[in-house]
Amino acid sequence: MAEAVTAAVLLIGNELLSGRTQDANLRFIATRLADMGIVLAEARVVTDDEDQIVAALNALRTRYDYVFTTGGIGPTHDDITADSVGKAFGRRVVYDPRVVALLEASYRGRGMELNEARLRMARVPEGAELIENSISAAPGFRVENVYVMAGVPSIMQVMFDALAPGLRRGRPVLARSVSVHLPEGTLAAGFRDLQARYAAIQMGSYPFYRDGKYGADLVLRGTDAATLADAIAALKAMLAALGGDPVETTA
Amino acid sequence: MAEAVTAAVLLIGNELLSGRTQDANLRFIATRLADMGIVLAEARVVTDDEDQIVAALNALRTRYDYVFTTGGIGPTHDDITADSVGKAFGRRVVYDPRVVALLEASYRGRGMELNEARLRMARVPEGAELIENSISAAPGFRVENVYVMAGVPSIMQVMFDALAPGLRRGRPVLARSVSVHLPEGTLAAGFRDLQARYAAIQMGSYPFYRDGKYGADLVLRGTDAATLADAIAALKAMLAALGGDPVETTA
Repeated sequence: MAEAVTAAVLLIGNELLSGRTQDANLRFIATRLADMGIVLAEARVVTDDEDQIVAALNALRTRYDYVFTTGGIGPTHDDITADSVGKAFGRRVVYDPRVVALLEASYRGRGMELNEARLRMARVPEGAELIENSISAAPGFRVENVYVMAGVPSIMQVMFDALAPGLRRGRPVLARSVSVHLPEGTLAAGFRDLQARYAAIQMGSYPFYRDGKYGADLVLRGTDAATLADAIAALKAMLAALGGDPVETTA
Repeated sequence: MAEAVTAAVLLIGNELLSGRTQDANLRFIATRLADMGIVLAEARVVTDDEDQIVAALNALRTRYDYVFTTGGIGPTHDDITADSVGKAFGRRVVYDPRVVALLEASYRGRGMELNEARLRMARVPEGAELIENSISAAPGFRVENVYVMAGVPSIMQVMFDALAPGLRRGRPVLARSVSVHLPEGTLAAGFRDLQARYAAIQMGSYPFYRDGKYGADLVLRGTDAATLADAIAALKAMLAALGGDPVETTA
């Protein structure tokens, strides 16, 4: 079996830790990576603080195949991601002539001035590869295994779509899910036994309380469709034997 | 000035990194901590993997005054937070007689059996203090500076409310926000100068594109109301001079 391809996400921004903003980027990236068979092993959220960003980057980039960052690449003084990535890699941060040309054309087209603040968005670590931004021109960039994207979800999403074809894929992880109106504590013993029988399948239980009834969504994940199908059949049988009403749902 | 009180959040669960579940706990905790003047400096998201949970716990608990975890304290085999916390602190995990009594009463009242799986929820690291769960009985717990809560948001929230009175507070961070229909690149130079003038105020810019117009929410945070008011007045004057239409909004 091919070795797993692993990744981490680093969300950058004071607003995520002050409670001001609800992050929407982690789930998007997580879903896309799962579709590509890339194992998202960890995520971190840090403030706009250079030391903290550098420490997180260096911890994650040495541990995982890929690191995806969001946030901190705009024109204002609180956007310090490019400098932090430069520092983490020991690379100078320079005005990239390709980005300067992109920004010149974009702002000219919009009748806006390419002033010093906007030019900041042309600063990337030396040798970085650009990531296209089809919405507002200012690109993201890649240094080695670190992909740096905007924080605004719509822009982050087009950047991710632009970089995704260049990623090494793993074996896709298939997910199937069964919903049942039984309390978790009632099905836990059988579920544990099932997990022991199917070591290659990762099994999780997510309880709910809906329409006045306890229940759980049981999610099974694995790379082999046949094994997964066997485990799902065994799960349904186990739940039916407990008097449950197992229904397969979209995982 | 009193020393800052710092905290980190550790979100535990495969479902957060597979894209299945949108986390709702970080923002809740972040907002409450900000109200209490506790600086949330970092958050991490890890899978249901003991080594990973232990490593994150030990990194965070030694670095910050408080660590708040969510997830992994239910009755099913994928709930391994109690064991992980025990391992991080080098404490045995034991059936706590106070929790056994709580669970016995609760399940008896609901006409349900306190079976072995449900009894797992009575397992806490030796010497842990309990955190009340006013919804479904099974408590969270505290070991030293680590507070362990459920992952289900409604339950996490009542647990947080139960533990909050025991936290040491910092000086509350006041936030004020001004919204303006100017592109970030137009206001960035003035905003940077303002930040330089008010070092004690943390200033962030969050761009938006609404109703066909570029704009930004400019958020100022600080602990001194008078300084913050001065900075807000100066910000509004700067934006008005640029032809903007600054409007104070709820931060």
